[in-house]
Amino acid sequence: MKAEIISIGDELLIGQVINTNASWMATELTLYGINVVHIAAVSDKGEAIRDALDQASERADIILMTGGLGPTKDDITKKILADYFNSEMFFHEPTFEQVKKVFRARHFEVTEVNRQQALIPEKCTPLFNRNGTAPGMWFEREGKVFVSMPGVPFETKVLMKEQVLPKLKEHFHLGVIIHKTVMTTGMGESFLAEIIKDWENNLPDSVKLAYLPQPGIVRLRLTAKGNDEANLRNKIDVLVSDLHSYIDDLIFGYNDVSLEEVVGNLLNEQGKTVSTAESCTGGYIAHLITSIAGSSNYFTGSVVSYSNEAKMNILEVSKDDIDLHGAVSKEVVEAMALGVQKKLNTDYAVATSGIAGPDGGTDDKPVGTTWIALATPNGVLSKRFHFGEHRGRNIRRAALAALNLLRLVLIK
Amino acid sequence: MKAEIISIGDELLIGQVINTNASWMATELTLYGINVVHIAAVSDKGEAIRDALDQASERADIILMTGGLGPTKDDITKKILADYFNSEMFFHEPTFEQVKKVFRARHFEVTEVNRQQALIPEKCTPLFNRNGTAPGMWFEREGKVFVSMPGVPFETKVLMKEQVLPKLKEHFHLGVIIHKTVMTTGMGESFLAEIIKDWENNLPDSVKLAYLPQPGIVRLRLTAKGNDEANLRNKIDVLVSDLHSYIDDLIFGYNDVSLEEVVGNLLNEQGKTVSTAESCTGGYIAHLITSIAGSSNYFTGSVVSYSNEAKMNILEVSKDDIDLHGAVSKEVVEAMALGVQKKLNTDYAVATSGIAGPDGGTDDKPVGTTWIALATPNGVLSKRFHFGEHRGRNIRRAALAALNLLRLVLIK
Repeated sequence: MKAEIISIGDELLIGQVINTNASWMATELTLYGINVVHIAAVSDKGEAIRDALDQASERADIILMTGGLGPTKDDITKKILADYFNSEMFFHEPTFEQVKKVFRARHFEVTEVNRQQALIPEKCTPLFNRNGTAPGMWFEREGKVFVSMPGVPFETKVLMKEQVLPKLKEHFHLGVIIHKTVMTTGMGESFLAEIIKDWENNLPDSVKLAYLPQPGIVRLRLTAKGNDEANLRNKIDVLVSDLHSYIDDLIFGYNDVSLEEVVGNLLNEQGKTVSTAESCTGGYIAHLITSIAGSSNYFTGSVVSYSNEAKMNILEVSKDDIDLHGAVSKEVVEAMALGVQKKLNTDYAVATSGIAGPDGGTDDKPVGTTWIALATPNGVLSKRFHFGEHRGRNIRRAALAALNLLRLVLIK
Repeated sequence: MKAEIISIGDELLIGQVINTNASWMATELTLYGINVVHIAAVSDKGEAIRDALDQASERADIILMTGGLGPTKDDITKKILADYFNSEMFFHEPTFEQVKKVFRARHFEVTEVNRQQALIPEKCTPLFNRNGTAPGMWFEREGKVFVSMPGVPFETKVLMKEQVLPKLKEHFHLGVIIHKTVMTTGMGESFLAEIIKDWENNLPDSVKLAYLPQPGIVRLRLTAKGNDEANLRNKIDVLVSDLHSYIDDLIFGYNDVSLEEVVGNLLNEQGKTVSTAESCTGGYIAHLITSIAGSSNYFTGSVVSYSNEAKMNILEVSKDDIDLHGAVSKEVVEAMALGVQKKLNTDYAVATSGIAGPDGGTDDKPVGTTWIALATPNGVLSKRFHFGEHRGRNIRRAALAALNLLRLVLIK
């Protein structure tokens, strides 16, 4: 089954808005086994929309439009669609109820003009939009399906997930397709591929693997197609369990969970607390931890000790250690972890000290050299890493490595 | 002049890659006064590319293609383009020199197969790609210009900026177009529009204004078209200077500079230092500051005092103040700023204490209530803010507000 996405809106054509909606939809359609053959961004003028629809009909069975349905543009796009499908407009009572409900919630008055928002082409099946005023509209012609949705990502996503995708699945009798995404950190794509080569080569033909790299993280997505859902799920679970025997330490979760959320859940479950002492990561680990709602249950604080004075004055790192071994050393990073653990009275503490770059590297300790320590209730451990040359990525990779070190100790 | 962008690559159609390249190109073309009428993402198969070129030729004068030119896909796309323009391939010596240079830098051996990378259609003007092996290719037909570029953003951007855009300007005799972007923080788009209404209404017809909102920041872009560059620049500078009289405190810079960079430059110039004490921002201010290379010159560290114990133990906030006024209060946030200023021995110190949400709000202090303090060499000042309900945005807005408070004192 082939699909085309048409994103409507001048804001896309002047580069003001990045078309994340189309990427998200393409991902979801692909996950349903639907083949996206073309994505177009067009102006919200009638001719551009009609041409895009004509061309899309030549290429695809499913044509999904987003945008051009806000209250201000409402009439134009709806009228274009009504014309395109030779349809009259009719007053759709449930849509008007929703308009009134949304307006009341925002304390706006409903005027006669707003009644117009409930006019929709009679040849469409309206799809209820619980997050906005404009409904989705489902048209069918010559075996093809056309769906128009508002372009606000929050509205598009809910309409797609709750209505469009299930309806497409039913309409086109799509088979069962199951995905599981394995989240890994700590190893780049090519090294990972080398280590799991045997496992990958032995995957059954019915299961596909995709490598989806992000900064500091590689997602491994397994996809199985067939008819028997329970059987497919079981097949994938067995493969994932087998994958653990290759890269157990690198797998921190499934299906797009974040590492900071996994660590937070573990700390919550075990009733333990953590603090951080950060040099090269400059507060980024604390930021990741506190981006999770409820993190005050297990996170007490952080000391970002960028200067040596901060390391000595607050964390009680000894001047001798700094002078003798340098700030980027096993001795100093371990002292930092122990210092913050004591100062903030937590069960665990992570510490980082490294050369984020672009300056500050030496032959001995080039840019990217990073020491990470973890203080536990039973002592302290540490590890040296060599990241790359890019400051932003070094900070990100060091933070993820520190969180993963903590995770590994928490699940022991 | 009308342009169309064709992004080639299956990774776009499965949603694996967001089409940021097309948005960036659309922005740049718009800045040159070129009207982008359509953006297409297509598969890297011959038929899809040919159809896209045919359709684009109907709509636009300038057709810009990216992607499908990596070493692995090289032959296919180049062959499609050669066929499309009825052109033979020829061996382009300067391209081969560049291939060899890039390979040597990466310590790869140049094989006979790599010579193929230097074959290009003879009807194109090659555009030198100093960041990669595949050159840009400029074709002309029936008054229209077609340009093919590699899709790696780093290569596309340099080719566009250094070669494609200047060449288009010359080829199509585009007039002079001048832009200046005013960076503001601290006020949402609609309030800002209300305050600068009179200024905006009095803009001359030759100058256009665009509001470009980002989280916590609104960029105001002024665009002037004409023939006399010096005159246009002067006109815009006068308007911007006039704008300062409306919103001086909100303007932190021009042309996409970041607030953390502006603050860093001010501290560097004045030889002053800063530290932070963060509760609701959880280390995010420290992270922003340290994302700038060289920040160790002026940033000594931060205390992320998420728990009350951290506020008392490290920052020496009094238990009485916390008990009496609560952690989110003028008294506590000022004590935090003074505490970290003293502890880390800095000229300035910023502190935040607020309710980031989603929980923790009360009738008195709803989610979004945030106190921000600034300790200076001459004492401490503080201010209460009411942000919104969204945790991530509250953290971002509080951090920007704190940095802007510091900026305003530094420029006094």
